[in-house]
Amino acid sequence: MIDSAELLGRSIDQIPTPALLVDLEVFESNLRRLAAFCQAHQVAWRPHTKAHKSPHIARLQLEAGACGITCAKLSEAELMAEHGIGDILIANQIVTPAKLLRLAQLQRRAKVMVAVDNIQAVPLLRDAAQRAHARIPLLIEVDIGMKRCGVQPGLEALELARSICQAPELILRGLMGYEGHVLTLRPPEAKSAACAQALNLLITTRDLLLSHGLPVETISAGGTGSYQLTATHPGITEIQAGGGIFMDAMYRQVFSVTDLDYALTILTTVTSRQSTHVVVDAGFKTMSAFHHPPQVLGREDLKLRYLSAEHGVFEIEAGPGPQIGELVQFVAGYSDSTTFLHDFFLGMRQGKVEQVWEILGRGKLY
Amino acid sequence: MIDSAELLGRSIDQIPTPALLVDLEVFESNLRRLAAFCQAHQVAWRPHTKAHKSPHIARLQLEAGACGITCAKLSEAELMAEHGIGDILIANQIVTPAKLLRLAQLQRRAKVMVAVDNIQAVPLLRDAAQRAHARIPLLIEVDIGMKRCGVQPGLEALELARSICQAPELILRGLMGYEGHVLTLRPPEAKSAACAQALNLLITTRDLLLSHGLPVETISAGGTGSYQLTATHPGITEIQAGGGIFMDAMYRQVFSVTDLDYALTILTTVTSRQSTHVVVDAGFKTMSAFHHPPQVLGREDLKLRYLSAEHGVFEIEAGPGPQIGELVQFVAGYSDSTTFLHDFFLGMRQGKVEQVWEILGRGKLY
Repeated sequence: MIDSAELLGRSIDQIPTPALLVDLEVFESNLRRLAAFCQAHQVAWRPHTKAHKSPHIARLQLEAGACGITCAKLSEAELMAEHGIGDILIANQIVTPAKLLRLAQLQRRAKVMVAVDNIQAVPLLRDAAQRAHARIPLLIEVDIGMKRCGVQPGLEALELARSICQAPELILRGLMGYEGHVLTLRPPEAKSAACAQALNLLITTRDLLLSHGLPVETISAGGTGSYQLTATHPGITEIQAGGGIFMDAMYRQVFSVTDLDYALTILTTVTSRQSTHVVVDAGFKTMSAFHHPPQVLGREDLKLRYLSAEHGVFEIEAGPGPQIGELVQFVAGYSDSTTFLHDFFLGMRQGKVEQVWEILGRGKLY
Repeated sequence: MIDSAELLGRSIDQIPTPALLVDLEVFESNLRRLAAFCQAHQVAWRPHTKAHKSPHIARLQLEAGACGITCAKLSEAELMAEHGIGDILIANQIVTPAKLLRLAQLQRRAKVMVAVDNIQAVPLLRDAAQRAHARIPLLIEVDIGMKRCGVQPGLEALELARSICQAPELILRGLMGYEGHVLTLRPPEAKSAACAQALNLLITTRDLLLSHGLPVETISAGGTGSYQLTATHPGITEIQAGGGIFMDAMYRQVFSVTDLDYALTILTTVTSRQSTHVVVDAGFKTMSAFHHPPQVLGREDLKLRYLSAEHGVFEIEAGPGPQIGELVQFVAGYSDSTTFLHDFFLGMRQGKVEQVWEILGRGKLY
């Protein structure tokens, strides 16, 4: 069995496929651009780590200027804290006593905020904090139009905020929202208007809480698909855009993100060749077509027919098509639904493997 | 961070969610039924391990009577061989010198057959075998109508067989085909006829090879979606049906497999509750809707709206719906696109965790 560390220094044609490659020049450029954009607009950058699940990449984001990171899961946050990451937002709800106790205990290692969207969770949070002799910092998640999680803007948020502020074990840090429902809107003016409308629900809710003497330091929102709009919206204090370090075909083609470049590719080998199609050694267990299909890189003759578990089947649209053994590389369709399928990233520079980054958060679902 | 071994002995309400559960009574019954069916019809059972990727479960299959196992990837086969599995079919093509050398070297640890469907691969296979001082056993993959991999039945297979038999380093074991294109056909008579037609292409090709004095001991075919048809087809010597040990909603509802029971579920917790819907802590990174959605178990009031990465969003169709913190369990939509998302199975008996089986083959893509 190949140990991933053995791959250091190898050229692209010596890498066992399929493999998940990061072009380090492009990655570093995306990282700098995201950090610089946030800095220029005086908004903090708390990138979501769901698209990489790697403590090493989290560290690179912090070094580039991120104020902390965002996670989806408690076990991801535990992993990141174990690797020395000190400021974490869990942008999902935690509602069971056993997990809340873990969350409270984790406060000894790191500042770990969590999203809350139900007043019934408040006594559970208090109880866990008491048992761990800790205080738990919270962001109230507000539904700003996506209709997934979150209390309603305005009075429902106010009621929850009051309940939190009555609990000495809890610290209300502010509000969180996700404008996921505006990402695909076109033309740009429509997207921009819808984004502003959604974010204003956070701002008016903030004002309501402030007018009642309740603290709202932090207003967190925004993924890569709207980061330029969200980071420049007055009152937003931090954005969660994470996947932009890799970029992908969905961000470019569906969400119209044009200022970042493709850093993430999947390297495959043609293993079977038929008269009309070829098969590569990467199916849906290697490169997801969910929510967007991977894009063939650097050649025009292949079109995705379908992905089965371990076969990627591509129509030969013109010419002879690739031979068996030939490498075919793909831009990730959606980085977030691709990277978590792998155990490691291979960081490439000048055609050679310079870095191997393990995806240690993979499988940390609980 | 929770170590999976800590979960032994816990009752279902003490398991951190989301979690992948196996009902051991049902699993063992499915295992016995598949093995007994094959035995009764004098066909060998070489279950595909793609739906579990666990050397422990492979061992249970061998103990139940399997003749060996099937893998998709060389690195999976290497893992299984390291764990003492001695008879493996890699039911995919391997075509690059570095991997072929690994395959040849692996013959020291286990008998590892591989599929071949291109005459250009023969000199590469020979070269690898020579370098490793090994012989490599092969099955010729024949396209029996699925139009994915495989040489054409008849003369193209004959030509490849001759080329293999001229190479002393290679051992032609027989033929392999996959009747994946017939699985969804209805009514049962249409499926049965199409399956027989597909499998007959293997049999006529076998007869052609035999008439030219070429050896064909093994004819391997068949997944869970057609296992009763394939195992009883005259001339088929072994079947690869693997996922049937778990069963899932797709096998039942789309492929009309009715004689096996649901053993595989996903345990989740409601983390957010809104007026029209609830959100559970399992999205597409935990339970895939590809190719078939997960099914709510034991309640009628919830309907899948969508899965995002870590949120499962369910419409409340009737009544008050579940509260936050409430457990909701799902039957896997498609076992093969679900299990590989997890690090371990929790084997449940009488409501308690009796077994923790690590999914060690997860990520073994290369």
